Amino acid sequence: MFIKNRGELMRFSGASLLVEALEAALEAADPYRAVLRHVKRVGDEVEVAGRRYFLSGAVHVMGFGKASLKMTQAVVDVLGDAVAGGVVISPVGGGRVGPVEVLRGDHPIPGEDTLRASQRLLQYLESVGPEDLLFVLISGGGSALFEAPEEGVSLRDVAWLTGELMKRGADIVELNAVRKRLSRVKGGKLLRLIKTRRVVSLIMSDVVGDRLDTIASGPTAPDETARKHAVAVLRRYGLWEEMPPDLRSAVLRSPDTVKPGDPHLERVHNVVVASNLQSLLAASQHLADRGYNVVILSAALEGEAREVGRVLASAAKSAAWFGHPAKPPAALLAGGETVVRVRGRGVGGRNQELCLSFAVAARSLPVSAACMGTDGVDGNSPAAGALVDGYTAEEAEKAGLNPLEHLDNNDSHTLFHKLGRAIYTGPTGTNVNDIFIALVYKT
Amino acid sequence: MFIKNRGELMRFSGASLLVEALEAALEAADPYRAVLRHVKRVGDEVEVAGRRYFLSGAVHVMGFGKASLKMTQAVVDVLGDAVAGGVVISPVGGGRVGPVEVLRGDHPIPGEDTLRASQRLLQYLESVGPEDLLFVLISGGGSALFEAPEEGVSLRDVAWLTGELMKRGADIVELNAVRKRLSRVKGGKLLRLIKTRRVVSLIMSDVVGDRLDTIASGPTAPDETARKHAVAVLRRYGLWEEMPPDLRSAVLRSPDTVKPGDPHLERVHNVVVASNLQSLLAASQHLADRGYNVVILSAALEGEAREVGRVLASAAKSAAWFGHPAKPPAALLAGGETVVRVRGRGVGGRNQELCLSFAVAARSLPVSAACMGTDGVDGNSPAAGALVDGYTAEEAEKAGLNPLEHLDNNDSHTLFHKLGRAIYTGPTGTNVNDIFIALVYKT
Repeated sequence: MFIKNRGELMRFSGASLLVEALEAALEAADPYRAVLRHVKRVGDEVEVAGRRYFLSGAVHVMGFGKASLKMTQAVVDVLGDAVAGGVVISPVGGGRVGPVEVLRGDHPIPGEDTLRASQRLLQYLESVGPEDLLFVLISGGGSALFEAPEEGVSLRDVAWLTGELMKRGADIVELNAVRKRLSRVKGGKLLRLIKTRRVVSLIMSDVVGDRLDTIASGPTAPDETARKHAVAVLRRYGLWEEMPPDLRSAVLRSPDTVKPGDPHLERVHNVVVASNLQSLLAASQHLADRGYNVVILSAALEGEAREVGRVLASAAKSAAWFGHPAKPPAALLAGGETVVRVRGRGVGGRNQELCLSFAVAARSLPVSAACMGTDGVDGNSPAAGALVDGYTAEEAEKAGLNPLEHLDNNDSHTLFHKLGRAIYTGPTGTNVNDIFIALVYKT
Repeated sequence: MFIKNRGELMRFSGASLLVEALEAALEAADPYRAVLRHVKRVGDEVEVAGRRYFLSGAVHVMGFGKASLKMTQAVVDVLGDAVAGGVVISPVGGGRVGPVEVLRGDHPIPGEDTLRASQRLLQYLESVGPEDLLFVLISGGGSALFEAPEEGVSLRDVAWLTGELMKRGADIVELNAVRKRLSRVKGGKLLRLIKTRRVVSLIMSDVVGDRLDTIASGPTAPDETARKHAVAVLRRYGLWEEMPPDLRSAVLRSPDTVKPGDPHLERVHNVVVASNLQSLLAASQHLADRGYNVVILSAALEGEAREVGRVLASAAKSAAWFGHPAKPPAALLAGGETVVRVRGRGVGGRNQELCLSFAVAARSLPVSAACMGTDGVDGNSPAAGALVDGYTAEEAEKAGLNPLEHLDNNDSHTLFHKLGRAIYTGPTGTNVNDIFIALVYKT
């Protein structure tokens, strides 16, 4: 369904169940299905994650992010004629989904397209009446695709600062602390531009931890950072002195973001419709239904991929030898996003490196495992991830491939491709980070 | 009790429960208590881990390892007059425990003392009659403390090969594959020198995974390796060609080790009386009794200490944010042995590095954690481990200490000592590897 080479993978031990579990995870992360799972029409009402809204006024749709198109399609399919119109921004753009305009924005650095599309979106928002129902569809990439700079700030300023901070190693939380000062819509400020009190934000989380203030810079969420945090970040990366003086003063006099407790927040129901945890839970359910003792070790995994692979292998060993963290047949799951310090010149990615390191550490263990990026793209490789077991290291050696050399050369994909163990999905159009599953068998 | 500075640690959040749990783990690892827990006198019988032995013939004690003294004391205390005599080898030696002689052996490289003590022990063994009960007390270091080379092999040969293999990076399994060929007692061969069919081996495991064939080279356990494995290891590390020809031929014509299914194995009841898992379970029980939801993530932990710290922090984050792997109040435990690639010149060890890395990654999290070596010695520091929480990184910064610099300089102990967060036990006289505990609080 999602995995293109599933047939070829089936010759490996454990592949069938692993592939099914991965597809359950991908299905949970699919933007169209994620919206359908959370939004139901019940007669004259629409139910969203336990809350009901009368379809009395018009229904409008706005959105921004890489999953805009599919999310919009789902809302339109569920609500049909009730949808009056809307504007969404996506990296592709052009055309309509039902009555909703789809505009193109820029990603990952905001440019003229983002500015134009965002202005059109904000203009549309003025037509949304105080009793109307407004769906805000938020997904990864939304920070760059939707932007309206604060007064005195140009988009060029935003792009320059964003680019410099990324180059200098700022993380997503630091980046957002700055972006929220320069923007009229981030940090909950979008809510101030909305007249209706009936706002439903459907959110696809591509951020480990699912922090609402971080996903797409939290346009409808409370913000815990303040001006002083932004200044501290700019100083930390040596940008405060380099900035043009008028940009510095724009940061200093930027209107405050929406803080926890702000009455504007009562207007909005923020619902995370897809996340790493939801995908892990979908895979868990599939495995539990088949008799596996399931543990989610972490839904916030981080660290150097090859080291994380060893730690996950140590949990699999412990399950096999000691019955902890779970008795075999056990399924150990983890999700999040690891990193790779690139030292070699090979073809691979964090998921395949994690798998290869796991395979080396889990040699001879009664285990099979898979790791994949839910976006379908692992590093500089054409694969999404890989599938391994306790005999994969030996299998590689018999094929004349040295697993440790491939690890050291960041060349995991070359090895897995040769063994037929790479998982191919192509770009999935979604991203809830990475999923790891290990099955530990009874012996 | 075990932790000397427990009073000073009490001012930190979570310290009281963490210290109690660590002491439960240390108590489970104490050789004297470990033997007492597994060996009970019941009238005319002695019960060992579910099996009963009549005290009809004489009871003899033999043993080798760093915990020999304490283990012998426990057997003598439980069985009193029933113990007829025995010989045990320890790194200290000299004197007696009740009727049991204590001799000195060499550690970590076997020398003349080991040879002499081992000959005396084997001589004593000849006096053990076919109906007598023989306790074999095995603990860490036993491989070097007890050795009787095969015919045609000198102790110098054994010491040289052992030293070279260690220098060239062979692991414990590889080392043992070779040592078992050169020895008359390793790889189960000791059983061939014992006349009685009533042998109880009490084993303290200092090896991750508790493989009986690995602890002290498995003198009373079946061996899965064969001559060809030894040759392969010697070739792998370039020693096969360097070896004197007569040593090479000694390896080739060495008598086979005791294999699974060998009738000699029916004589022995191998009982692991202390292990990393047993210590983790003792700490778990203490925490579960106090309402914590406990998960043992792994009892076979391995990897680079600072990376393992990040992965464990990601599990703590996941518990705090998502309730997986356990709902707060949660206790996440792990045990095993990490490594440190030394790049700096500071004072520290793997346990304190793991703690420091955890503290950095778990910043602001409602968590406290501790990690310690059960032998009481962490790296080149005088501490056993450290105690941290979600505010320790900030605490360090306020004290003018940069956690990342201390990590990069392998200087974790200096930081923890200054913050009063180092855990001091002194050498504990036991070793079941390292114990990590994180408590994740309800918020």
